[in-house]
Amino acid sequence: MAQLVVLYHNPEDSSAFDAHYASVHIPLAKSIPGLRDYQISDGPARTPDGQSPYHLIATLTFDSVDAIKAGLSSKEGGAAVADLGNFATGGATVLMFDTRSV
Amino acid sequence: MAQLVVLYHNPEDSSAFDAHYASVHIPLAKSIPGLRDYQISDGPARTPDGQSPYHLIATLTFDSVDAIKAGLSSKEGGAAVADLGNFATGGATVLMFDTRSV
Repeated sequence: MAQLVVLYHNPEDSSAFDAHYASVHIPLAKSIPGLRDYQISDGPARTPDGQSPYHLIATLTFDSVDAIKAGLSSKEGGAAVADLGNFATGGATVLMFDTRSV
Repeated sequence: MAQLVVLYHNPEDSSAFDAHYASVHIPLAKSIPGLRDYQISDGPARTPDGQSPYHLIATLTFDSVDAIKAGLSSKEGGAAVADLGNFATGGATVLMFDTRSV
């Protein structure tokens, strides 16, 4: 399998971020072809020492990194990526990698 | 459920990191009480634009953030955390958060 991890840095307006993410971004992201599982952080993302710089962390699972790339290149993936500019005012770090269980 | 995500920044010596991670750290981390699932990146972790600053990304799943905290506070968790100093020469970002499926 493979993970697409999106680390959303703290936005300017958390409430506006949350409202847009729930009502607009989740439906867009769920429509990406090849998506197998979609988990988001529920409540604060902390470090062992306290607050983290991230407001929300999304983990989207696909069959492979190639499937992630194909998904992001689709019409639906393009719409989801383009939507980041509408709410991710703190920026977002996007990571993609194949995974294995250990 | 909840995730403990460890983002390992690129180390000084990737080969030494990989050897230590596989032979020493995985067995230590797998012994942490409450661990339900343990996935690691297999191959490079990339951004959509190319290389990321991370050499390896580990996702450890527990029942809750409270279970993560209890696991890290255990003897086995303490040994796994203490082991980071033996191989994570680039540093590591540790994040913990409850999750929900969307």
